[in-house]
This record gives sequence, C-alpha cells and structure tokens, in this order.
Amino acid sequence: MTKPFQRVLLVSKYRDPSVLPGLRLLRDFIQSQGREVFIETQCSGEIDDTLGLKQMAFSEARAETDLVIAIGGDGTLLGTARNTASNGIAILGINQGRLGFLADLSIDQIESALPPILQGHYQQDQRRVLNAELWRDNQQIHSGLAINEVFIHKGGGESMIELSVHMDGRFVYTQRADGVIIATPTGSTAYALSAGGPILSPSLAALLLVPICPHTLTARPLVVADTVAIRARLTASRQPAALSLDSHCSVPLAVGDEIHIRRAPCSARFIHPEEKNFFQILREKLHWAESPGED
Amino acid sequence: MTKPFQRVLLVSKYRDPSVLPGLRLLRDFIQSQGREVFIETQCSGEIDDTLGLKQMAFSEARAETDLVIAIGGDGTLLGTARNTASNGIAILGINQGRLGFLADLSIDQIESALPPILQGHYQQDQRRVLNAELWRDNQQIHSGLAINEVFIHKGGGESMIELSVHMDGRFVYTQRADGVIIATPTGSTAYALSAGGPILSPSLAALLLVPICPHTLTARPLVVADTVAIRARLTASRQPAALSLDSHCSVPLAVGDEIHIRRAPCSARFIHPEEKNFFQILREKLHWAESPGED
Amino acid sequence: MTKPFQRVLLVSKYRDPSVLPGLRLLRDFIQSQGREVFIETQCSGEIDDTLGLKQMAFSEARAETDLVIAIGGDGTLLGTARNTASNGIAILGINQGRLGFLADLSIDQIESALPPILQGHYQQDQRRVLNAELWRDNQQIHSGLAINEVFIHKGGGESMIELSVHMDGRFVYTQRADGVIIATPTGSTAYALSAGGPILSPSLAALLLVPICPHTLTARPLVVADTVAIRARLTASRQPAALSLDSHCSVPLAVGDEIHIRRAPCSARFIHPEEKNFFQILREKLHWAESPGED
Amino acid sequence: MTKPFQRVLLVSKYRDPSVLPGLRLLRDFIQSQGREVFIETQCSGEIDDTLGLKQMAFSEARAETDLVIAIGGDGTLLGTARNTASNGIAILGINQGRLGFLADLSIDQIESALPPILQGHYQQDQRRVLNAELWRDNQQIHSGLAINEVFIHKGGGESMIELSVHMDGRFVYTQRADGVIIATPTGSTAYALSAGGPILSPSLAALLLVPICPHTLTARPLVVADTVAIRARLTASRQPAALSLDSHCSVPLAVGDEIHIRRAPCSARFIHPEEKNFFQILREKLHWAESPGED
Repeated sequence: MTKPFQRVLLVSKYRDPSVLPGLRLLRDFIQSQGREVFIETQCSGEIDDTLGLKQMAFSEARAETDLVIAIGGDGTLLGTARNTASNGIAILGINQGRLGFLADLSIDQIESALPPILQGHYQQDQRRVLNAELWRDNQQIHSGLAINEVFIHKGGGESMIELSVHMDGRFVYTQRADGVIIATPTGSTAYALSAGGPILSPSLAALLLVPICPHTLTARPLVVADTVAIRARLTASRQPAALSLDSHCSVPLAVGDEIHIRRAPCSARFIHPEEKNFFQILREKLHWAESPGED
Repeated sequence: MTKPFQRVLLVSKYRDPSVLPGLRLLRDFIQSQGREVFIETQCSGEIDDTLGLKQMAFSEARAETDLVIAIGGDGTLLGTARNTASNGIAILGINQGRLGFLADLSIDQIESALPPILQGHYQQDQRRVLNAELWRDNQQIHSGLAINEVFIHKGGGESMIELSVHMDGRFVYTQRADGVIIATPTGSTAYALSAGGPILSPSLAALLLVPICPHTLTARPLVVADTVAIRARLTASRQPAALSLDSHCSVPLAVGDEIHIRRAPCSARFIHPEEKNFFQILREKLHWAESPGED
Repeated sequence: MTKPFQRVLLVSKYRDPSVLPGLRLLRDFIQSQGREVFIETQCSGEIDDTLGLKQMAFSEARAETDLVIAIGGDGTLLGTARNTASNGIAILGINQGRLGFLADLSIDQIESALPPILQGHYQQDQRRVLNAELWRDNQQIHSGLAINEVFIHKGGGESMIELSVHMDGRFVYTQRADGVIIATPTGSTAYALSAGGPILSPSLAALLLVPICPHTLTARPLVVADTVAIRARLTASRQPAALSLDSHCSVPLAVGDEIHIRRAPCSARFIHPEEKNFFQILREKLHWAESPGED
Repeated sequence: MTKPFQRVLLVSKYRDPSVLPGLRLLRDFIQSQGREVFIETQCSGEIDDTLGLKQMAFSEARAETDLVIAIGGDGTLLGTARNTASNGIAILGINQGRLGFLADLSIDQIESALPPILQGHYQQDQRRVLNAELWRDNQQIHSGLAINEVFIHKGGGESMIELSVHMDGRFVYTQRADGVIIATPTGSTAYALSAGGPILSPSLAALLLVPICPHTLTARPLVVADTVAIRARLTASRQPAALSLDSHCSVPLAVGDEIHIRRAPCSARFIHPEEKNFFQILREKLHWAESPGED
C-alpha cells in the first residue's frame, strides 16, 4: 500500500466524441469519492467543454499525489505515457476497446476498482522507455520517447531498406528488410509480436530487435541488455525511409541518417488493480489454456 | 590481462581415436611453451595411453592457474563445462568440426593462438548455468547442470505431452507440445534456435522458454529474468516423457513429476582469443552480411 | 444428393469403455431409422458385447450403400480411414473431444444430423492418402498408408538425424533436423501446422514437407505437386530413427534405409453434414475473426 | 529440342547506364551468331543510342522465333514478363546482380550458354501469372498482371489495415495486418518467403496467401488451388492503403475497395540453359547443403 491519490487528471483520445460519456462517468464518480478532477490541457481543447472541469497540464501534476486516468485505446495510453514518463506521474488506463496489457480496466469496472486505487491499494508497474535520436550530418535533428518500440522502416515505398546496426560500438549486422523494430519488453507484446518476436517479461532489463520481412532467411529476433547503446544507420533506401515511435510521429529518413537508441533515464508508471498479473493477461489475450488440463 | 596459466588439463571426446593426433599436437606444443600437461582422469581411460601424460581429475585443478583444453565437438565442451562450473576452472575449446560459439579455435590455429592465452592475454566469458531438479512424490530423485538447455519432451513416444509451468509461484501456462526448451543465453544459439527461438546476447541476465511443435498456435517463445524459479509439472503424457540436459543424460519422467529449474550459483568460464566477439561469430555462422552493403 | 445408406458399421476407440454410451445411443437411433447396424469385427472384441450387434469386417462393407461411423478421437478416425481407403467406403466421424476437421459432429447432434445423411443428403470429401514404403538393402520391409502425414524422425534419441531427399529422381536437399513431416493437405492442419507449416486447402493436389527443428536456419516448408515420387534416405543418425504414419505404427529405421512416399491410388471418403465448409471450421478452430469487423 | 531463335530483342533496366557494356557485348555476340538484334522500343528511348540497333516493340515480336533477352535485376525481368505474358514470347534473363530463380545466367556466361539456346536447346519454364482488378463502387478502375505477387498493404501509413477475403464466394477470413501477399509459386521464393511463407514448386497449380505482421497470432500462410477466384475487400484503414503488383505500380486504395485476383489466362515463358533445375538454384540461394553429408 502506498499514498492515496488526491487529484485526478483525465486524458482522452483527442477529437473523439465517443469518449464523452466515459469522461462524465469518471468525473462524477471520482468527485463522489472526494477527489478533485481536472482535464488535461491539450485534450481539453478538443473535447466538448460541457464537462466543466478545470484544466491541468502534465507539467503541473505532482508525482506523489496525482493520478492520470487515460481513457481510450492504446494510442491514447502510449501518448500519455510518453508525456508523463519524465516526471513519474502514475497512469491508470481505461480501455474503451479490448482490454490490453497496460489498460486492464473497462469503464464499467470503475465503481468497484477505483476506490481502492484512489486509497493507494494498487500494483505499480514501472515500464522501461526508449529514447531515440535522429542524427544527420553530425547534428541531432529529432528526438523522442517510445514506450513500445522504435521502428525504422521503408515508409510508403515498396523497396526494402538496408540498415547497419552497431551496439556499444560493435558492428552487429547489416539488415536488409522492410524495417527493424527495436522494442521494450512492453512493446514485445505489441507490434513486435505480430512480426514474429518473442514475449519478454515486463520487468526484464532487455531490448528486443525484430526485423520485418528480412531479406536474409537466417535473420532472427535478438534480445540484448537494456544498457546497450544502439546505433542504426540507414545505408540504402530507394525512397525516403521513416522513423516511428510507438507507431506514431513518423519522421522521414535519408540515406546516411543515424538513429541512436537507448533506454531513457525515466520510466512510465502504470497502475493496476491489485489482483492482476502479466501471465494472466497474456493467457487471456492469446487464448492460452486457463488452467492445467484445458486448452 | 590476467595471470598466466601454469598447467594444462586436456579433455577429449571419450572413445574417439580420431582426437589422438590433435591431443599429441597439443601436448607437444604446450610442453614446448614450458607448461605441464595432464590428461583428465576419466577420459584417460578411454584414450590410448601412448600419450604418456599424468592424469588429473577436474576436482584437482586450481581455478587460478590451470587451464582446461577441451578438444572435440559441442558434446565434449558442454560436458567439460558442466564438470568444471562448480569450481570455476577456465576452459578453452578446440573444435574438430565446425567452429562454434564456445569453441572458436581449430587445431591448426594453436601455434599462433595458444601462447598469448597461456600468458594471460585472453577474453573471459562467464556463461550462466542452469540447475534442474526432478521431484517425484515430494522427493528429489535427480539433479544436474545444463550449459545450453533443460529440455522436457515426449521422449520416444508419438503423443504430445502437457506441461503446466509456474514462475516464482505464479501460473504461466499449460503447454501441450512435443516439448519445452528452457535455455540459457548460451543455449539460445543452439537447439532453441532451430526450434524458432530468438538469439539472446550471452551476457543477458535472462532465460528463454521455447515450445517445440506447440498445439496452441498462439504459443510464443518467452524471455524472463534469470532470477526466476521455474517449476514445470508434467500433467499429461501417454508414454514416459523425458528430461534432458544439453541433449544429454536423458531421464524418464512420469505424469505428476515436477522439474525445478533455476540459475545455478556457479558459471562456466570460457576463454577466447582476444580479437573475437559474439556478433562476429553470429554473422559467420548464420551467413549474415559481413559488412554494410553486402549480403 | 446421392444414394441413401442402408447399413451402418460402427467403429470406436479400442479398449475404451467411455465410448459405450455413445455406441448405444448410435445403435438405437440408427435402428429407429430402419437401418441395420453392425460393429466392426476388430473393435468388437475390445468392446463390451452387451451391444448385441452383429460383426462386420471393413472388407465386407459395400462402398455404395454402407456407411462407417467412427466414434472417438482423431486416432480412431484416422485408423478407420486408413482401413477403408482402399475400398472407398464412406466415413462419418463423431468426435468425443473437440470437433475436428474430419469429425465435425458431436454425439448430441446425431438426432438432427444423421437422418438427412442416411437419406443421402451430405457433402462428400475425398481426401488424398499417402503410401509409404520402407526399403532396406533393396528390399521393401514395410509399407503403410497415411491420411495426415508420414513422419521420419529421431525416435527416442536426442541427436538430430540427417535425411537426403529426392523428388522424381532429383536431389532436393539434405536436411539435418529432429525430423521431417511429409503431409497431405488433410495433415496440413494437424501436426505439420504445429511445426510451422502452411495450411493447404483440402482439395489441393499437393504434398507438404515440413522439417522439425532444422539445423539450417534457411530451411522452409516446401509444397510440391502430389504426383511427385519422394525418396528420403536416412544418411546419418546416432540412434535408431523412426518412421511413423499418422503419429502411429512407429517403425525403427537404420542408416541407409530409404522411405518411398507417394500418393496412394485410393482416397479416404469422409461425409459431412451439408452446411459445413473448410474455412468455417478453420475459423472456429484457430479463433479467427468470424465476420468482417470482429477479431 | 525446339525451334531455333532467329531474332533477339534486348530489354534492359531503364535509365541505367551501367547496363550499356552488357548490352554491347550481347549485341556483338548475338550478331556474330548470325541473328538479328533489336532494342525494345520503350527502353531504347532511355538508353544511349550509340548501340545502333533497330527498335522493336513487344507487340511486334513473334512467339515462335523471337527471343527476348532481359538484362538487369529482378525488376527488369518481372516487367518484361508482365509485358510479354499475353503473347507468349520467350524470355532469357541475364542478371547483373546475384543470380536469381528466373535469371540464372550472368553476362560472362553468354559465350558458352547462348549458342545452344539460340539453336533451340533449352529448358522452357512456363510461369503462372496473376490478374488483379481493382473495383470501386461497382466499377473496375484498375487492372494489371503480376508474376510474383499481388500485395495489398497499409501503404505509407502506420496503422494496420483490415481485409475481408472470400474465395469462390466463400468467406475465408478477416485479416488485420500490415498487408496480405497473394503470390504465385514463382513469387513464393520472393517477397512471400521473407514474410514467412512456404516455398511452392514452380509448376504447382496453386496460389499462396501470406499475411504480413498479422494481428491474430493464429494467422498462417494459406495455399489454395490456382483456379480459385479471390476477392479481398478493404474493410478498414485509417490511411489510404495500397495495391502493388510485383512491388511495383502502387495504386491507392480506399475503404470499400475490392480487389479481384485470379490466375491470368496467359503465362510468362522463361528460358533456361538445359542443365539447371529449381532445387539446385534453391540450394545455392538458401545455402542449403549441396550434397548428402555436408551442410
């Protein structure tokens, strides 16, 4: 048990009126629990202001006593995590679609699940964050965080790209492929999984590299320590390639560009109801046998 | 640079006369370098005694100043590693067949490669070791070490087996499959790789679980921290199943048996010439592109 | 619509008393439909004779007017199919466990599903059958049929085997692996699928080769015309290898043995209720999305 | 042995001066063999006209006595094949890079390899061709041929697309993925292979469907008869999706678009020196063991 939360900051999918009923429900219920409720500044502009909530920016939140509740899909949750990772604010994800690894509550569970969480009874789940920097001609021209994965890929073109990868200064391989995913353990159950990668336990101090449609049939997913500094250089591409963070914020790449990837000094802090664990969610999502003897 | 080695203990494939020329070459060359040479006691009985070497048991070797040179294939090297892991003796592998990850010298390289090693110029490569215990009716009836992998499988039968796996007391899954490999990073480039597993960096503090021919199509390789205590229970099998360590020492299993697997408190200590690194060997063995631009 | 069936021959899992209630139910219901019911000779000896049914051997059945109903699991159905393929008798499978591709009726569906089938309203599903011959020292020492797959594998040992494969006299590859599956389209959704093979449409005139744990990382499943004559030679094995047909009837193999595999001149004739189709069963069994928009 | 070729039509990579020396060599050598040499009309415009060759359009070539020699990479060869498939002209591929399945001659082999071919001693290799039509609002708005594959994919966006696939009017599945490849046997060793598909024997009367990064982990490659009419409907996509034929001629897709794919009534006719066969090339390209006993 940890400290109770005093204030709640609501975040939702931008420009999506379908989240309004959920936001109202959350507002009313949290206020009924004696907590102050705010709407995140950036998303407030996009949302019908009939909610009547005061605005708060992520930068104003206090890590010790404020809780961010993100309602929406994976995109909303990952964006919120990227925005809060640097100052360690707790995030509770409420998924509007299918439950996920990070957002394991649905809106109709809040009455039973929220009160204990607000009082400090919850599981805390610190997730590694990746930092990616794009360097061109010895200048850093872009940088960003990723909760799931950094993805270097062929963009909108049809030809594979060629990447040369070094780790801690050592040459690893030249990969010709549609792209290479560099994922956190969190990302190992997202895009990297559909590309044939293994599942990494969330707390494992590791990074995962998974090529997409590699030209070389002996290419395999690679799991390395998360202390490694990865340097991927775009050595060939017929079209502008692209760098994406969490399948988002795509940036065009030119031949010769270098992407420097390493674990960020911060982490995303997710909150879960106490009874859940990773393997249980994994079994549910992947239709694995629920108990010995079934399948 | 570390201490020079003073004595060398030779180990070879048992009952294989084809290693004799290599053993003679090693004996003569090492003696010419002013070092004492011994033959390992157990393998000496199997080898033509015309070598004229004194015997030494692994238990008599001194970790600080003695070097074990194992000549043969992967089986010889893994056996030597299991036998020396508990007292930390250095192993240099000389491969008679194709070079491997652990044995990266061939017999014709010894004149150039051995002198610096004997003088203490080498890379040291500590590899994790797994300990597996077989429990039946609350009694431990077998235990052993594995450098590459613990493998629980259907043995000689034709029906899949069913295993229920827990980690640190938490239920992970029930796997119906031909078998499940629990591998170290070292083992990730051995049998687990041919079963579709990812490659783990040798120094990664992780274990890898890979099912063989899983019944559930959503089964995926799983990478977890190497501090985890794994408990696998054989919940169904039409025939005697089997437990193997490094594809060796197969032990029959009955339904209800539990295998407890965890990292052993010791590690295998391999010696390599200074210039080699893991990714270089990986590229060579998997025919990956040797440099940017080729394939 | 085809001819009505006049006589029904029941086949069940040998030595399994749990099928008795199902057999009684079938006997009574089919007799109530005015059809004569028999028990297959070989399985009758294993079954409680309280059923009071006359015996009939597969060889006595008439392809035009007799229906074999096999009740049990996949093993019973595949065995029945191997035994009836040569004389073209229709088989209806009733699965006691989970529904399968070949047995898509459960015992509680018979009252609604059987009457139309007995009257000749059904889908007929001719499945390719493989013939495997084992040759040693230029003598054929074994032969048999397979509905799903011919499997050449390492048997109870721990070392991979080496197979040299020719098709129509042309060298294809030398495969070092735990085994190689040669499957029919029917078998493509069975063992070959768990080994990573593709799904073949049941009517496709093709065979499928899938290696298990191949040593060479570039090994891939291979799909060839079903007119091909395959010759697999065991070129290396440290232990007796094995040949299995439909995960059954394992025969030991010695180095130098040749297995000749080709499509048998007969086929297994399965009966299905009219409304079912292959893709529907595939979606159900693999948890694929049932309709556009879900998952 | 078939009829000798009388005229040769040269085709090369457009806009690539690096093929000029090869074209000159071919021109001189073929003229020295007493054959007339032409340059293909469309590519002539892009090439330095110092070659001094008369132009000929594909439509002017005669299937019985004219040979097209395509020099360049896979793109040149596939384009030539799409352009000649409808009138059955023979193509000989000369690969400037690595040898391929379709172009198995290099420029320095022409002196020994061309004369027998020109005299009619060669292997003929008819390859299936796919026809793809794009339908929008019940109107066909695009169509084209593919030698390797039809590829429906997410285009330049970052979100997966959703496709609903029917075959011969039967619903197969709804696939959420980065894309789906529908390949010929020829294409099974191209892009589909890097996406995890099986290898299809070139003469197999089959098509192959391979998803790229499928959301559902139970998705598997699917092999169906080449008589099947495939209808893929784009049921969801956040961005314009895309249709590509042989990684070429990308066309944007909107939600609701239907792509109709079926075997074209023509085929591409490749010429090979007599001694080559498919499995030999496969072994060379995939580094498979060349003979029993090696690897």
